[in-house]
Amino acid sequence: MRNLDQYNITQAVIARLAQTPDPRLKQVLTSLVQHLHAFAREVKLTEAEWAYGIDFLTRVGHTCDDQRQEFILLSDTLGLSMLTVALNNDKPKGCTEATVFGPFHVEGAPQFEHGADVANGAPGQPCTVRGSVRALDGTPVAGAVIDVWQADAEGKYDVQRDDLVHAQGRGVLRSGADGRFHFQSVVAEPYPIPDDGPVGEMLRATKRHPWRPAHLHFRIQAPGYQTLVTHVFRDGDPYLDSDAVFGVRESLVANWVQQPDGSYSLDFDFVLNPASAQAPPLTRSTEASPTA
Amino acid sequence: MRNLDQYNITQAVIARLAQTPDPRLKQVLTSLVQHLHAFAREVKLTEAEWAYGIDFLTRVGHTCDDQRQEFILLSDTLGLSMLTVALNNDKPKGCTEATVFGPFHVEGAPQFEHGADVANGAPGQPCTVRGSVRALDGTPVAGAVIDVWQADAEGKYDVQRDDLVHAQGRGVLRSGADGRFHFQSVVAEPYPIPDDGPVGEMLRATKRHPWRPAHLHFRIQAPGYQTLVTHVFRDGDPYLDSDAVFGVRESLVANWVQQPDGSYSLDFDFVLNPASAQAPPLTRSTEASPTA
Ligand SMILES: [Fe+2]
Ligand SMILES: [Fe+2]
Repeated sequence: MRNLDQYNITQAVIARLAQTPDPRLKQVLTSLVQHLHAFAREVKLTEAEWAYGIDFLTRVGHTCDDQRQEFILLSDTLGLSMLTVALNNDKPKGCTEATVFGPFHVEGAPQFEHGADVANGAPGQPCTVRGSVRALDGTPVAGAVIDVWQADAEGKYDVQRDDLVHAQGRGVLRSGADGRFHFQSVVAEPYPIPDDGPVGEMLRATKRHPWRPAHLHFRIQAPGYQTLVTHVFRDGDPYLDSDAVFGVRESLVANWVQQPDGSYSLDFDFVLNPASAQAPPLTRSTEASPTA
Repeated sequence: MRNLDQYNITQAVIARLAQTPDPRLKQVLTSLVQHLHAFAREVKLTEAEWAYGIDFLTRVGHTCDDQRQEFILLSDTLGLSMLTVALNNDKPKGCTEATVFGPFHVEGAPQFEHGADVANGAPGQPCTVRGSVRALDGTPVAGAVIDVWQADAEGKYDVQRDDLVHAQGRGVLRSGADGRFHFQSVVAEPYPIPDDGPVGEMLRATKRHPWRPAHLHFRIQAPGYQTLVTHVFRDGDPYLDSDAVFGVRESLVANWVQQPDGSYSLDFDFVLNPASAQAPPLTRSTEASPTA
């Protein structure tokens, strides 16, 4: 402890975590320290760079408030959010894929009946959204709680508007006995993630654009099923192959179809994973593998 | 880009950094992404743990203000600060070792003449500090700018006091023509790092104490020499082998000697590294090593 150097300090920090009562916390912190130290050693982080990092993270924190979550944006733009989604949503084939939650969901959004207009005054071209919620075997899932939220034609979520007086472009519906639901809204458009803070500074320094392809957010919850957090992406969007937050799945891209009257319609069916289901094993072998 | 999974997403994020104009920024961010993702994969970070991490970092940011730097405390308690110091202060034998800067330094502290009392009313037992600043060959370094700062007998730095009216326990002196300096202050005492925020929460969850062994901070700057940021630690302190921030070096431990009148004295000599000097090579070989 009195002669730590760049090589043995990592073990000294890990030793200090030895009395952590929660084994999972101990495991996570130990791994975090190892990888954080490995990063600093690998790049031979300078003291000026360390100080820049401290200041950057402090500014990220100070940018966060009730309406803005800059640490989620940082995690999203570094691919950590989508990696975490991928690590935890290894579902059987046929289930709807998950993607990032994003920073714009609001708990307790207004509840709507089927056919209602969740845009609620948000600007944009009218659009009818129809869908269903089903199990893997096709059984309709009735009474699923469907959260939907989206940006408007100006690329803004309601919570990004200073003059917000009521929710716009977000709502909660329930699937019917046949598993189906439908509502009115406006067409999703591409939008830049908020880039007037430290994350925008990082994007500019790395010559990255801040745009996300047009999408509609869904969170679908039903007893007995794993909660699904996902988007439906709009086919033809110019940013589908360069999403600023790495969230696009090919299976989530759908067509917003223009109707003769100029309005649009979207149809999308969601398939939920049973809550207790695991992804099928890669082989049918029943041999026990050694777990040391 | 439309079929990223937990394995290929890291390469996709790194590819997005390819246009970064500054090669060092590109190197640092690429390594950061690799190690951050490796951590998440290794522990199979859950979505709830990710959300806890976002909230934790947000609270760390919100705890930072003009008087409190919680991100430095987090870096210190994870050993990252001391690792960065070790990586960047590989000095020739005989130079005074560096240690962590800590969050309590203030630029522009009051200037003092030799013999002045830098405690300036801070509570504690009187102490005389005498020292010198020299080069490796023993040459006195005249006119070195010596910043000193310390906690008082109650374990508080002046900036931690809400009722602060003027600087206490900190000041700037200059070494004389003989490289020497001396000043009055109070004896350094052990103190807990601020633990009423998120870092304190981490310390409690890992059963770690927040204490630092008693020490006096120094920053010594002189033209032609590498700036030295270090502490002098007080021998006999119960926390020397469990410093909450991993900052103790055996070579920095010194004796505060009690005098017949009850006051204390400390003598410590500092040796600066020439600004252009590198640590001596491990061997005298002049063979070129292959650099692929
Ligand atoms: Fe979004
Ligand atoms: Fe200190």
